[in-house]
Amino acid sequence: MTKHAVTVLGLGLMGQALAGALLRAGHTTTVWNRSPGKADALPGAVVAGSVAEAVAASPVVIVCVTGSAAVREVLDAAGDLDGRVVVNLSSGASREARETAARHGRYLDGAIMAAPSDIGTPASAIVYSGNRAAFDEHEHLLRDLGAATFLGDDPGLAALHETAVLGLMYGILNGFLHSAALLRAAGVPAESFVPFAGAGIETVAAWLPGYARQIDEGRYPPVDATLDTHLAAIDQVVQESVAAGVDSGPPAFARELARRAVAAGHGGDSYVSVIEQFQAPDKERS
Amino acid sequence: MTKHAVTVLGLGLMGQALAGALLRAGHTTTVWNRSPGKADALPGAVVAGSVAEAVAASPVVIVCVTGSAAVREVLDAAGDLDGRVVVNLSSGASREARETAARHGRYLDGAIMAAPSDIGTPASAIVYSGNRAAFDEHEHLLRDLGAATFLGDDPGLAALHETAVLGLMYGILNGFLHSAALLRAAGVPAESFVPFAGAGIETVAAWLPGYARQIDEGRYPPVDATLDTHLAAIDQVVQESVAAGVDSGPPAFARELARRAVAAGHGGDSYVSVIEQFQAPDKERS
Ligand SMILES: NC(=O)c1ccc[n+]([C@@H]2O[C@H](COP(=O)([O-])OP(=O)(O)OC[C@H]3O[C@@H](n4cnc5c(N)ncnc54)[C@H](OP(=O)(O)O)[C@@H]3O)[C@@H](O)[C@H]2O)c1
Ligand SMILES: NC(=O)c1ccc[n+]([C@@H]2O[C@H](COP(=O)([O-])OP(=O)(O)OC[C@H]3O[C@@H](n4cnc5c(N)ncnc54)[C@H](OP(=O)(O)O)[C@@H]3O)[C@@H](O)[C@H]2O)c1
Repeated sequence: MTKHAVTVLGLGLMGQALAGALLRAGHTTTVWNRSPGKADALPGAVVAGSVAEAVAASPVVIVCVTGSAAVREVLDAAGDLDGRVVVNLSSGASREARETAARHGRYLDGAIMAAPSDIGTPASAIVYSGNRAAFDEHEHLLRDLGAATFLGDDPGLAALHETAVLGLMYGILNGFLHSAALLRAAGVPAESFVPFAGAGIETVAAWLPGYARQIDEGRYPPVDATLDTHLAAIDQVVQESVAAGVDSGPPAFARELARRAVAAGHGGDSYVSVIEQFQAPDKERS
Repeated sequence: MTKHAVTVLGLGLMGQALAGALLRAGHTTTVWNRSPGKADALPGAVVAGSVAEAVAASPVVIVCVTGSAAVREVLDAAGDLDGRVVVNLSSGASREARETAARHGRYLDGAIMAAPSDIGTPASAIVYSGNRAAFDEHEHLLRDLGAATFLGDDPGLAALHETAVLGLMYGILNGFLHSAALLRAAGVPAESFVPFAGAGIETVAAWLPGYARQIDEGRYPPVDATLDTHLAAIDQVVQESVAAGVDSGPPAFARELARRAVAAGHGGDSYVSVIEQFQAPDKERS
C-alpha cells in the first residue's frame, strides 16, 4: 500500500471520521478546522495553523464542512490551489458543485452515502463526479475512505445521486409513517406492522430492475398489474386515509399522477408510465 | 391431512387460483361463477348451477369477486347462510368489511397479499380478521391457500393492513420514479440508479423496527439523525427537483410535514416525530 500526503479541511463529525480513516491507512494527514481543538482525537495528524498552510502540505485536499457558503469561504482562503486536487465531500446542490468545479481545474465532487462510523469500512459508499483523471490518479487513496464510484464528468452527478437516494428514502419513510398512522387509528401497534412492511418493501424492490429497464426503453408493457388496477388500489388508500382521519397527502398525489397517466392513454400499461407525469408537472413548489 | 368440502364463488384470475389450490390439496371443491365456462380449467371441481346450490354444498364459502357491490349481490343470492362460514377474499374497504360482517354471523374478511400464481405456495400471504372461532376451526383449510395470519376481531383489520402495505408500496414506487426522473433530466439512465436505490431501501428498511418502537412508545429520541438535519436533506431534494423541472410533489409534502413538526418543537427529535403531523391534517383530500 503506497502512502500519500493528504489534507482534510473541516473536522466536524464527518471530517474527523475521514481524517481518522486516512491516518489508520498510514497516510501523512494534515488537518485544519475553523475552531481549534477538533484534532485532539486524531493522534498522528499534522495540525495546520491556516487553510493555506494545510493546502500547501498535500497534493490532495479534502473539504468537508457544512454548506456551500462554507466551502467557498474555505477554498477562497486556500490561496494557490495550482496542482492541487480538490475533493469536496460536503453536501450541496448539483448546481453548486458545477460552479465550484468551474473555479478549480482538478476538482472532484463527492457525496457520502454513509454515517461517520462507517467511514473506512466496506459499509461506506462514496460517489464522485468531475475530473476523471484526478479520480483515476487518486482512486487508491479514496478507497481508504470506503467504496468509491466515479459517476461521470458532470460535477453535479454526485450531488444528484445523493438527492435521488434521499428522495427515495423519504418516500419510504413517509409511506411507512402514513401507514402506521392509518393502523394506529384502528388500534394496531406499529411494531406488528413491521413484518408486513418488510414483505411489501421486498416485493417492490424486486420490481425495480424491470421498472428501470422500461424507463430507459420508454416502453411500458404491464408487468405486475395494469395502471388501471394500480389506480383502484391507490384510491383505496386515499379512501381509507380519509375515513381514518389521516392526512391523505401521499396517496392523493399518487392518484393525481395516475389519473393523468390514465387520461394520457396509459390505463393498460405498467405503473412505470406514471414517470412521464413527473416530467410534465402542471404545478411546482419551490 | 383431513379433506373438507369448500365452495368458491367467483372464478376470475384469483378465484381460479384459489379453487385450483384447494383441489390440489384434495378438498371437495364446489365452484360457481356468474358467467359460464370459467371452471373448464378446474378438473375435479363440482360446478354448481346457482349461488344457492354452491352454498348448500359446503360449510365454508369463499367469495372472490371484484368490488363490494358484487360481494353483496352474490351473498344476497346465497339464500340461507345459516351454519356457513363466509370467507370474503375480495378486496374492499375496512368499512365495507365491517358492514358485511354485521350481516353474517360467522364471517372472515381476508386480504390476499400475493399474485394468483403464488396461491397455494409459501410465497402467498393472506391476512384474516373477524370471527376468531371460524378462523381457528378452518385454519388448516385456509393454510392450503398460503400463509394465514389472523389479525383480530375487528373485521376491518385485514382490509386496513392491505391498505397500509399498498400505501407503503406506492410511496416507494413514486420515490423511485421521482428520483429516476431527476436523474434522467441529467442524462443518467435509471438502470444505473438501481443499485443505489437498493442500498437506500436496505438502509431505511433496517431503521423501521426502531421507528416502530418509537411510534408505539410515543417518544422520539434521535437515532440516525435529528429532524433538523432531515429537513435540510428534504429541502435539498425539493430544490434539485425544481432546478431539474421535475414535479416536487413528494418532497414538498415531506417538507411541509417536517416543518410543522419542527415548529411543534421536534427539531432535535428523530424523523419519527413527523407521524403526529399525519394525524393532525389541516387539509384532507378525498
Ligand atoms: N454526519 C453525517 O452523517 C454525514 C453524512 C453524509 C454527509 N455529511 C456531510 O458532511 C458535511 C459535514 O458534516 P458533519 O457531520 O461533519 O457536520 P458537523 O459535525 O456539524 O461539522 C461541521 C463542520 O463544518 C465546519 N464549518 C461550518 N461552517 C464553516 C465555515 N464558514 N468555515 C469553515 N468551517 C466551517 C465546522 O467548523 P467548526 O468546528 O469551526 O464549527 C465543522 O468542522 C456536511 O455537508 C454533511 O452534510 C455528513
Ligand atoms: N389478481 C390479483 O393479483 C389479486 C391479488 C389480490 C387480491 N385480488 C382480489 O381478488 C378479487 C378478484 O380479482 P380477480 O383477479 O380474480 O379479478 P378478475 O379476474 O377480473 O375476475 C373478477 C371476478 O369477479 C366476478 N364478478 C364481478 N362482478 C360480479 C357480480 N356483480 N356478480 C358476480 N360476479 C361478479 C367476475 O365474474 P364474471 O366472470 O362473470 O365476469 C369474475 O369471476 C378482487 O377483489 C381483487 O382485488 C386479486
